[in-house]
Amino acid sequence: MERAKKIREGDVRTASRLIRNIEDNIPETRQIIKDIFLHTGNAHVVGITGSPGAGKSTLVDGLIEWNRGIGKTVGVLAVDPTSPFTGGAILGDRIRMQRHAEDNGVFVRSMATRGSLGGLSKAVGEAIHVLDAMGKELIMVETVGAGQQEVQVMNYAHTIVLVLVPGMGDEIQVLKAGIMEIADIFVVNKADRDGTKKLQRELMAILDMSPNRSGQWRPPILTVESAFEPVKFRKGIEAVATTILGHHRYLFDNNVIGDCNRRRSRYELNDALVSCILDPILNQLIVDGEMDRMVDKLLQGETDPVTLAEEVAGKYLQITAD
Amino acid sequence: MERAKKIREGDVRTASRLIRNIEDNIPETRQIIKDIFLHTGNAHVVGITGSPGAGKSTLVDGLIEWNRGIGKTVGVLAVDPTSPFTGGAILGDRIRMQRHAEDNGVFVRSMATRGSLGGLSKAVGEAIHVLDAMGKELIMVETVGAGQQEVQVMNYAHTIVLVLVPGMGDEIQVLKAGIMEIADIFVVNKADRDGTKKLQRELMAILDMSPNRSGQWRPPILTVESAFEPVKFRKGIEAVATTILGHHRYLFDNNVIGDCNRRRSRYELNDALVSCILDPILNQLIVDGEMDRMVDKLLQGETDPVTLAEEVAGKYLQITAD
Repeated sequence: MERAKKIREGDVRTASRLIRNIEDNIPETRQIIKDIFLHTGNAHVVGITGSPGAGKSTLVDGLIEWNRGIGKTVGVLAVDPTSPFTGGAILGDRIRMQRHAEDNGVFVRSMATRGSLGGLSKAVGEAIHVLDAMGKELIMVETVGAGQQEVQVMNYAHTIVLVLVPGMGDEIQVLKAGIMEIADIFVVNKADRDGTKKLQRELMAILDMSPNRSGQWRPPILTVESAFEPVKFRKGIEAVATTILGHHRYLFDNNVIGDCNRRRSRYELNDALVSCILDPILNQLIVDGEMDRMVDKLLQGETDPVTLAEEVAGKYLQITAD
Repeated sequence: MERAKKIREGDVRTASRLIRNIEDNIPETRQIIKDIFLHTGNAHVVGITGSPGAGKSTLVDGLIEWNRGIGKTVGVLAVDPTSPFTGGAILGDRIRMQRHAEDNGVFVRSMATRGSLGGLSKAVGEAIHVLDAMGKELIMVETVGAGQQEVQVMNYAHTIVLVLVPGMGDEIQVLKAGIMEIADIFVVNKADRDGTKKLQRELMAILDMSPNRSGQWRPPILTVESAFEPVKFRKGIEAVATTILGHHRYLFDNNVIGDCNRRRSRYELNDALVSCILDPILNQLIVDGEMDRMVDKLLQGETDPVTLAEEVAGKYLQITAD
């Protein structure tokens, strides 16, 4: 309870250590997650996604500044391996990020894609609770939108912002594969580049074709000029920041916040079930040496993986699969 | 057994239907997978990975042609949402792909990132068995290397080819996040572009820093000129094709094929365990309405996900977690 209390008081060291333990999937974290859980649910969780090089971090950096300007506390989880927040980018970017380090109202953490099988998704979900319990009002989760787990992470967000840049031919194609359908706000970043108009038209056409949007929130397409144009950049950031706030208000005004929270809880429960059901069995199989024996059988062509897995299920499960 | 026999005879319609059923996770596929499993293990499985726009499909197309030229049968699984094989790319590319449609020695299928929790990885693993049982000697799996599941898919490959293009600043950064360490062959594609030398130098530097390569296979860095230079392109493709063969031979000559197959079996077993243990429990919870009741409790702040998941584990599992 002591540590949970420290987190609720916003203690940065305790929170950092807890998030690291969550990443490493250390069993002792469970009790603290339980303790803080009932003090969560207040933050607005915003997913920021887009291809590497789309300028997500610069945008996030601008959004931190704007929100601090209106007095909001901000938490950031960077899951993108190219993000300067995670230390993946060039030196200049990293130095730029340092400027929030002194500000107690900002807490930035990077998370790596370690572990397997939904491990990232579960870890990010729990880290969001930590930031929420710390009292961060706006929590931004930055991630590349390419892989399935990265898309899954977005299920924890109330508002999903998709960041695009003009002049990347294949990009729209990639995005069609999943993120496109769930984005609430489109941002065309570096909009002083060639191809901005074309990209806007393409996005508009895709939105027009989308069947499920009628009567609902229609995702706006915003533009942000690159950071080399400070005044225009700031205007662009302001538009994005206020639209994010607007989407949050929309969720409440139209009674869709309930559906949104239900979906988030469901995903979180799913992740917890993997962790509490599958992981103990896998651990047991490894400890018993059973895993190695099964692999031997496969290599000798004695049997197949599904037959083996069914045997394991028969041994450990108290229900029978249909 | 009838359908397993048809697949072993190379029947395209039966194989296509089976792969579709695998994607949709239809329970009846299990028996066929079992039936064909003992007739697999003959193919050389090659993973082709790299960012969208790196030209993976053009390379795969060239490799199909080269291998058909030496009489090898070829199977391709395209998991990349931007691949022309999956129908994600521009018209010209798609037409180019059609030319293999008449050739019985080539079987190309695309697979989508449907389902969740290792679903893609499991589906691709099983589809590889289908192509293997059909008698395809070389099986290429094309995927973008960004997400965790896409990286997981590579665990099924004997040989991993990483395709890069010059002039994409952030790319190397992304790749550091996982694929870089496991690639066996680097291909700098579109090597008539600016920045090829720079990219080669960077790759070389990364390989030199890599600690685990001494005494082992050192990944060669090959270049392929763009397809607009047909003669040079073909020479580049030939070098890639023979290096892929060379890596396969290396695995046998140095007795590492055993380790490689062990790793592949282990991943496959893991995927099967998820499918046979977790899926039945989730289904049961949904059918009983228990899932909805649990989500209600979460939304009302009565309890937390881990506590609920532990209760489910206590009910369905015959072991207790430590």
